[in-house]
Amino acid sequence: MAGNTFGTIFQLTTFGESHGPAIGGIIDGCPAGIALNFEAIQHDLNRRRPGQSKIVTARKEEDEVIWLSGLFEGKTTGTPIGFQILNKDQKSKDYSHIQSAYRPSHADMTYDKKYGIRDYRGGGRSSARETACRVVAGAVAKQVCSNIRFNAYTSAVGNIELKVPLEQLDFELSETNDVRCPDPKTATQMVNLISEVKKSGDTIGGVVSCVISNVPVGLGEPVFQKLHAELGKAMLSINAVKGFEYGSGFAGTQMRGSEHNDAFQSNGRTTTNHSGGIQGGISNGMDIYFRVAFKPVATIMKTQDSIDQGGAKVSVTGKGRHDPCVVPRAVPIVEAMAALVMADFYLRQKIQTVR
Amino acid sequence: MAGNTFGTIFQLTTFGESHGPAIGGIIDGCPAGIALNFEAIQHDLNRRRPGQSKIVTARKEEDEVIWLSGLFEGKTTGTPIGFQILNKDQKSKDYSHIQSAYRPSHADMTYDKKYGIRDYRGGGRSSARETACRVVAGAVAKQVCSNIRFNAYTSAVGNIELKVPLEQLDFELSETNDVRCPDPKTATQMVNLISEVKKSGDTIGGVVSCVISNVPVGLGEPVFQKLHAELGKAMLSINAVKGFEYGSGFAGTQMRGSEHNDAFQSNGRTTTNHSGGIQGGISNGMDIYFRVAFKPVATIMKTQDSIDQGGAKVSVTGKGRHDPCVVPRAVPIVEAMAALVMADFYLRQKIQTVR
Amino acid sequence: MAGNTFGTIFQLTTFGESHGPAIGGIIDGCPAGIALNFEAIQHDLNRRRPGQSKIVTARKEEDEVIWLSGLFEGKTTGTPIGFQILNKDQKSKDYSHIQSAYRPSHADMTYDKKYGIRDYRGGGRSSARETACRVVAGAVAKQVCSNIRFNAYTSAVGNIELKVPLEQLDFELSETNDVRCPDPKTATQMVNLISEVKKSGDTIGGVVSCVISNVPVGLGEPVFQKLHAELGKAMLSINAVKGFEYGSGFAGTQMRGSEHNDAFQSNGRTTTNHSGGIQGGISNGMDIYFRVAFKPVATIMKTQDSIDQGGAKVSVTGKGRHDPCVVPRAVPIVEAMAALVMADFYLRQKIQTVR
Amino acid sequence: MAGNTFGTIFQLTTFGESHGPAIGGIIDGCPAGIALNFEAIQHDLNRRRPGQSKIVTARKEEDEVIWLSGLFEGKTTGTPIGFQILNKDQKSKDYSHIQSAYRPSHADMTYDKKYGIRDYRGGGRSSARETACRVVAGAVAKQVCSNIRFNAYTSAVGNIELKVPLEQLDFELSETNDVRCPDPKTATQMVNLISEVKKSGDTIGGVVSCVISNVPVGLGEPVFQKLHAELGKAMLSINAVKGFEYGSGFAGTQMRGSEHNDAFQSNGRTTTNHSGGIQGGISNGMDIYFRVAFKPVATIMKTQDSIDQGGAKVSVTGKGRHDPCVVPRAVPIVEAMAALVMADFYLRQKIQTVR
Repeated sequence: MAGNTFGTIFQLTTFGESHGPAIGGIIDGCPAGIALNFEAIQHDLNRRRPGQSKIVTARKEEDEVIWLSGLFEGKTTGTPIGFQILNKDQKSKDYSHIQSAYRPSHADMTYDKKYGIRDYRGGGRSSARETACRVVAGAVAKQVCSNIRFNAYTSAVGNIELKVPLEQLDFELSETNDVRCPDPKTATQMVNLISEVKKSGDTIGGVVSCVISNVPVGLGEPVFQKLHAELGKAMLSINAVKGFEYGSGFAGTQMRGSEHNDAFQSNGRTTTNHSGGIQGGISNGMDIYFRVAFKPVATIMKTQDSIDQGGAKVSVTGKGRHDPCVVPRAVPIVEAMAALVMADFYLRQKIQTVR
Repeated sequence: MAGNTFGTIFQLTTFGESHGPAIGGIIDGCPAGIALNFEAIQHDLNRRRPGQSKIVTARKEEDEVIWLSGLFEGKTTGTPIGFQILNKDQKSKDYSHIQSAYRPSHADMTYDKKYGIRDYRGGGRSSARETACRVVAGAVAKQVCSNIRFNAYTSAVGNIELKVPLEQLDFELSETNDVRCPDPKTATQMVNLISEVKKSGDTIGGVVSCVISNVPVGLGEPVFQKLHAELGKAMLSINAVKGFEYGSGFAGTQMRGSEHNDAFQSNGRTTTNHSGGIQGGISNGMDIYFRVAFKPVATIMKTQDSIDQGGAKVSVTGKGRHDPCVVPRAVPIVEAMAALVMADFYLRQKIQTVR
Repeated sequence: MAGNTFGTIFQLTTFGESHGPAIGGIIDGCPAGIALNFEAIQHDLNRRRPGQSKIVTARKEEDEVIWLSGLFEGKTTGTPIGFQILNKDQKSKDYSHIQSAYRPSHADMTYDKKYGIRDYRGGGRSSARETACRVVAGAVAKQVCSNIRFNAYTSAVGNIELKVPLEQLDFELSETNDVRCPDPKTATQMVNLISEVKKSGDTIGGVVSCVISNVPVGLGEPVFQKLHAELGKAMLSINAVKGFEYGSGFAGTQMRGSEHNDAFQSNGRTTTNHSGGIQGGISNGMDIYFRVAFKPVATIMKTQDSIDQGGAKVSVTGKGRHDPCVVPRAVPIVEAMAALVMADFYLRQKIQTVR
Repeated sequence: MAGNTFGTIFQLTTFGESHGPAIGGIIDGCPAGIALNFEAIQHDLNRRRPGQSKIVTARKEEDEVIWLSGLFEGKTTGTPIGFQILNKDQKSKDYSHIQSAYRPSHADMTYDKKYGIRDYRGGGRSSARETACRVVAGAVAKQVCSNIRFNAYTSAVGNIELKVPLEQLDFELSETNDVRCPDPKTATQMVNLISEVKKSGDTIGGVVSCVISNVPVGLGEPVFQKLHAELGKAMLSINAVKGFEYGSGFAGTQMRGSEHNDAFQSNGRTTTNHSGGIQGGISNGMDIYFRVAFKPVATIMKTQDSIDQGGAKVSVTGKGRHDPCVVPRAVPIVEAMAALVMADFYLRQKIQTVR
């Protein structure tokens, strides 16, 4: 109930602060008998890892998963999968200046007011380091619903937007550049913008898009747990996310019903896909696609006026190692959260086949 | 787990199909001793009621709440509050043509594939009639966290957008026009557009915005159940919603951190509010504001090509009574879902005060 | 979270007070496509109904189920099944004497202290009338896991115990007498004891036993949700229950391991069944059997010294219509709760079959 | 949903197998600001530790808790508390003989049938080693509701029963003997019986009783989550438990209402306490007391006939290090589970105080 568990059947519970000894989690409800591909899991984690390129934070973490339970001879046993990732490259001294000061647009003040106590080192629990555990569990989830494909990519950095239509994208190209945009030309512009912003000590926002394909018809629950509602919640639970839209999204609000409706073909598929693969909260077998808005990182290398716990004026200057733009490293996190949602609904749907 | 329950402590479970004898719900976890204002509840329900103006569906329902339990001498007793609303004006014959045909962009096909059976009359469970129960429970929720204020309003219909800045809006004006836009001039344009669209047998989308004010600091859980993640899920669970953004939203992705960060004043409030009243998933005491995208209603009074259960081509023409634009009636639903989320977190936060 | 919902996948949420307009519930998570046998449901409800014989309360209630949703042409649709039972024979005046007085060993005082308000009429929510809703849902649950057989019966009333060994019982005989004991001779003694106790204005306790047979191997979750832990919780949630034991139970604590262990036969079944059909929290395919202890009903037709809300001494005399012994009417309730548990685990186990 | 989480607000999720690298857990929902007494936690863990006396298993484990998160400068921060205990003294070779053989009355066969795969080493997840994590979390829970007192003790071993009335027991004496019985004379008899049984290569069952005192009035939820129902589930979830009774228990079934009812005194307390401190599922402020039945340990040092996975006859002889009687080490586990239940309800009750 304190919100550190995600999912209904396939459940992830996480723990850990940025500068504690370790972060980790428990995956409960993973079906037995799956021969896990551990390399694929580490691969996803490497995509999220700090220090992987010049446009992300310089913190160096191997981020190697230590598996503690739930596996036997490489296969899942149906019992909870405990895992942890050690924190090795903390530099807690970098944070002594914010022990009592509140960084603007950070969670410092709200944690203090909510709990009356705060581990200020590296942002404590509010650090995006916690998302490494999501990537581990998401990579397991992908193997639970292994027919479903997840492709996230960077579709905007600041005002540089990917303009290539969805159908023409080659997702294989996303991982060929540091910003994870499947169009190399746009990618270069994005990388340049991030570099420039970084030099100026500032940060910039962006958009991650995601396509889920090969989805069985029938996933999702039609009232409060609509498939897109759970996807939306999953995305909005990622640090720095400000918005979520799927299918036609906000642009669809300007359309007429006669334009927006997706005509059925005789095979049950539709000619257009404004619905974004979901009708009435339930997957219809077409591609699910959605966009996730990320705000600019709050920690900037500039001096800002702020206050401390007592309300006194202080000035705060960013220290520590931070991302100028979260979007490149957010791509695998978006995929992971999507996989957690889809694996859960995939397992839930088994219950409908009664006898 | 089948997704007909919403909330963690303050919980609503709903039942009912569009053309069954009744819809209803159970509110569990409402604290004892609240002298409910039943008029306020009926007032919210009337705002959602069909047949209230020329720009909404003509179905006539009194939508009077029948209270069945959980109340004693007008006060909540802490036991579950059962309630129902009778369905009186069903015209099930209007739906015989879709007994086996699939209406484009409706939930007909997905229900059939998910469950293997479907109550086709009036859309059955997929009908937005179910949201009446949400409005009842939301109106109770408002009385649980009675200091918090909820103001939703129509901010766009098709390409007609409300341009008045948030700070200059007078929410009292929202209920003075049929479309529930707080700017009378824009409201007139919106009503005209809806009327025009209706005449042409078509439908149109729009945007509902909502401001939640007077929020205590500290509500929300910081990881998977961030306050905005639960608000987003709540909104995305409403029929026809395609997107959600809060605070700076998608526009914020184009900003620099130095522009986007909200500077603290010595009283703990911030000079700007790009954060939308939430930092790290926890309320910071500033206004929470968000936007919800609604697609155009799928049922249009035009003939569309489609298929039936067997995959044979059929043509489908809208019958029955439908809204040309859901946005005016969605305003109280958005408020209700917001209130369900906020009342839940309001009650959850009591647990932090241990001794 | 306020505890009016039971189950994980197959979920029952109930509402209603003894003297309100109706009691009822919502069954969520029932798989689609089951052609319900409504007579079987009403039959179970009749077995619980007041006024059915001379040894139970004289309150007269038809207890007819009104179905409100989730059914289409007699079949479940996968959407929530709303139902209600009207309260018709309330005599609320019988209770004015306990408006402020606390009946000994009743829930009057604890409700008052917990909630600060109490619907005193007929015991309000604490009345066992609530269990009628459990019987309805349990009867549906039986049809979800229709191969599993549930046989509950009275095995003790006061000091009169059924001594016939389990294997020799003919469950068909349970419903041939008012006390629901499968041994007619013991049944007569039990009925006589209850009649005698009733005449003296007193009440008496007893034991209900239950056998669940034809159970698939593999149901139950091995740690906190062991099959017998959930059965125990289910039974202990029934009004007036003081104890639960399964398999060898308390008597088994005096045995040696060498006596108690159940030897395997080559077909996987065991020669003895001290385990009670469950090993490590998981069903092993043998009969599950357990015993449930019911205390004597608290309302007696004698004058008792007590106190009122202010702590002043009062005397309380039982009025209204009450059971001298709950056990005969508890038999279908025990079966219903057992069915709710088993149907839930039956559906949960489907998730293990991954691909 | 796979049942490795316990609790609603104060939640424990555990992981780990007997012979894996570690066992551990995550405590979520612990309020912030509690200065934990770590010695008290380790003390409870030591009471459960193997190898502590001659009448328990000889496995040697330090069972030292490694804290990973959720604490800052010795205080809880409101974020999840991750912890682990290393497995150091596994002797997995002792188990090669049961790789495919099923030990009678163990969980070997049921795990195999449920999951299709099984970590046979030391019983894997079905080992009572998992309960060490419960003791850790229970010791934290005791500090959350620090006014409530938990006293569990051994009240029977085989046919040797503690006959001293509850009111005359001095709980301080429980920890002065190896069997944890508060009556030294009975304790000696119990120790002798266990030693004798151990010599014969056999095992014996017993009963653990528990008294919870200083309980606030009003804890518990009155329908499906009655206080005693959750206590019962908690106890029945402990390995080897076959029964639970509270207050008058099974003996109460033989009483008349006029004897069983607890008369109120003017201070709201009762003269007798057959109710066991709970009325209508809600604590009434009197002592809560209950008894938990433990069967004899299944692993005996005698040769037993059994079968293997294929159904072929095999003989199985106990190897490894096992307890001749679980009861002495079960005492702190019973306390821990009781504390988890009470802390949860203690926190839940805060929600009733609305404004």
